[in-house]
Amino acid sequence: MLKIFAANGSIALASVILLEEVEADYELSVLDFSRNEQKEAAYQAVNPKGRVPALITESGILTETPAILLYVAQRFGSDSLVGAHDPFIFAKIQEFNSYLASTVHVAHAHRMRGTRWTDDPHALEALKKKIPESMTAVMRLIEDDFLKGPWVHGEAYTICDPYLFTICSWLESDGVDVATLPRLMAHYQSMLDRPATQAALKQIS
Amino acid sequence: MLKIFAANGSIALASVILLEEVEADYELSVLDFSRNEQKEAAYQAVNPKGRVPALITESGILTETPAILLYVAQRFGSDSLVGAHDPFIFAKIQEFNSYLASTVHVAHAHRMRGTRWTDDPHALEALKKKIPESMTAVMRLIEDDFLKGPWVHGEAYTICDPYLFTICSWLESDGVDVATLPRLMAHYQSMLDRPATQAALKQIS
Repeated sequence: MLKIFAANGSIALASVILLEEVEADYELSVLDFSRNEQKEAAYQAVNPKGRVPALITESGILTETPAILLYVAQRFGSDSLVGAHDPFIFAKIQEFNSYLASTVHVAHAHRMRGTRWTDDPHALEALKKKIPESMTAVMRLIEDDFLKGPWVHGEAYTICDPYLFTICSWLESDGVDVATLPRLMAHYQSMLDRPATQAALKQIS
Repeated sequence: MLKIFAANGSIALASVILLEEVEADYELSVLDFSRNEQKEAAYQAVNPKGRVPALITESGILTETPAILLYVAQRFGSDSLVGAHDPFIFAKIQEFNSYLASTVHVAHAHRMRGTRWTDDPHALEALKKKIPESMTAVMRLIEDDFLKGPWVHGEAYTICDPYLFTICSWLESDGVDVATLPRLMAHYQSMLDRPATQAALKQIS
């Protein structure tokens, strides 16, 4: 059986939602980040990066949200989840998730995880100050240019949707005025309406 | 014919190397970042993110290095480039490239692109100061835990290799003592020995 390591308030929620969506058989282990469990030796042996999610499979351990979403969808889900019918659509879905991973999630991470990039207390405060501006800018681009609606890639729910939903759950605490992003908020509500999302949220936030 | 937008000193080199590796027919357009051409309206119409690479295909425009590498390899290359024979290996290759995109490239970007996350001059200097430490830490993890050798995933050259090579070309200017990373440096030299890498480097750095 699969086992996924996660933490509350983390991006691991996206992978848990997808595991529910495809009705995979899995066990969930929730790390306590407030006790720095992700830095303890037991977890470092699972993921030396000290981050979540990490997925234990029969073939080995997999980390990084875009890779886990792809693997879970290809193993348990329908072709439409990853756009497998068309190599260009397949790549576009990877493009969107790569943007979330390398730009959007990173912009957010400067609020709580600034010590990845500086130890200077003044600089850490400066990084926090720009979060509302930088998160609003990337979300504005998604709202105006990338989100087709009702799902990210149009009529078909894909592995981009739980990923976007999870990041959108952080927007209010990031200081983004979500009222200015009505299409993203409609997407957020559509995700909340799905039984798989609700099942995931019963186990982890 | 494909057209790729790139810039010297950018991550776009990885995609150009792969285009050479698979002998794709393509046109290269090199933007001048010192003149901020990536922010001009003509290029914003290609990629509203204002970054490179961007690949123009018959089906549409593709951005984000992990997605472009995947698309080019699947369209023109052999299955071994992406690990298509095994869904777990396929996901592991995506995991590695996702780590490069969301953690390693991002650590490097704090040297020249700190204004993405702060406008405070003191904070920008503080971000630059940590580059040698943060880049050494991620490269140490790749050297010790992820690089199988001779290529990233062992005996087969994959889409991880030109991506890793391109980031390694930045290490000395990032203040990393490359002598402490002999396995990565052997990989770098193996990449330099390939005709496709040499052909790409004749056109762009």
